[in-house]
Amino acid sequence: MLVLGIDPGTALIGFGLVAKAGARLTAVEHGVIRTPAGLGTALRLVQVHEQVKELLERYQPDAVAVEEIFFHRNAKTFSAVSQARGALILTVAQYGIQVFEYTPLQVKQAVVGYGRAEKEQVQKMVKAILKMDEIARPDDAADALAIAICHIHSYRGGDTP
Amino acid sequence: MLVLGIDPGTALIGFGLVAKAGARLTAVEHGVIRTPAGLGTALRLVQVHEQVKELLERYQPDAVAVEEIFFHRNAKTFSAVSQARGALILTVAQYGIQVFEYTPLQVKQAVVGYGRAEKEQVQKMVKAILKMDEIARPDDAADALAIAICHIHSYRGGDTP
Repeated sequence: MLVLGIDPGTALIGFGLVAKAGARLTAVEHGVIRTPAGLGTALRLVQVHEQVKELLERYQPDAVAVEEIFFHRNAKTFSAVSQARGALILTVAQYGIQVFEYTPLQVKQAVVGYGRAEKEQVQKMVKAILKMDEIARPDDAADALAIAICHIHSYRGGDTP
Repeated sequence: MLVLGIDPGTALIGFGLVAKAGARLTAVEHGVIRTPAGLGTALRLVQVHEQVKELLERYQPDAVAVEEIFFHRNAKTFSAVSQARGALILTVAQYGIQVFEYTPLQVKQAVVGYGRAEKEQVQKMVKAILKMDEIARPDDAADALAIAICHIHSYRGGDTP
């Protein structure tokens, strides 16, 4: 089972691919999708689409897990992230791959076992669970790996978690 | 010149097609795209995509004008509308059609000549400008026609307004 985790943002969208073989989880790949702010809405969304498409075609994940975003004061940023999220979820759905959504609380709970865990704790647990030599960088990529782990821990066969 | 105006919403997305021939503007078609709330994020976005695609293929507009949305208290609704907006702008961009964004203020200014005009004034002006027998219904479709008119009035050839 191969899961692509995605942490949506404006300029940076984190991604992390986690493979599950038996009880063993491995980080297959992680990184960020960059969309230059100067591009304008439509071209930015096309870039998100193209880069997500490339990941889907290269790795053919069985499922995609996307973090839900919450409103923090800046409506413009929130709107831009939501639009990027819409574009990337649409792209995944067009490939017939199921999309699962998790809140930051669910991700922390699944990875650290504690919903109010600090970012650093989550990153250390991701490193430990995936037996990585170093903490994944940048943060967005580490978060995306955590989201993929969350899906693997939460998902029980046919039923939507 | 044929312009597709879009008024993004959650359950209803208004659309309106306005043709410009010389100085005369005509309403070619208007209506709403419905996306049932029960569907879940991915399937809703796929429905938005499919229905926008159908409009683009049937009418082949020269440009698409989309209203910018503003935050009003409910973050969940705002996020859902932004996601739908992301999916539809991506769809239009994939057809190589240019997307233009206008604020509600710009739309009112362009249609009524007054940025703080009431909804009813905008609807009456849309009816008058497009020489329609009745006010377009529902409101979302009338708003979409207003957005298309705004683009036609604002756009001056090659330069992005």
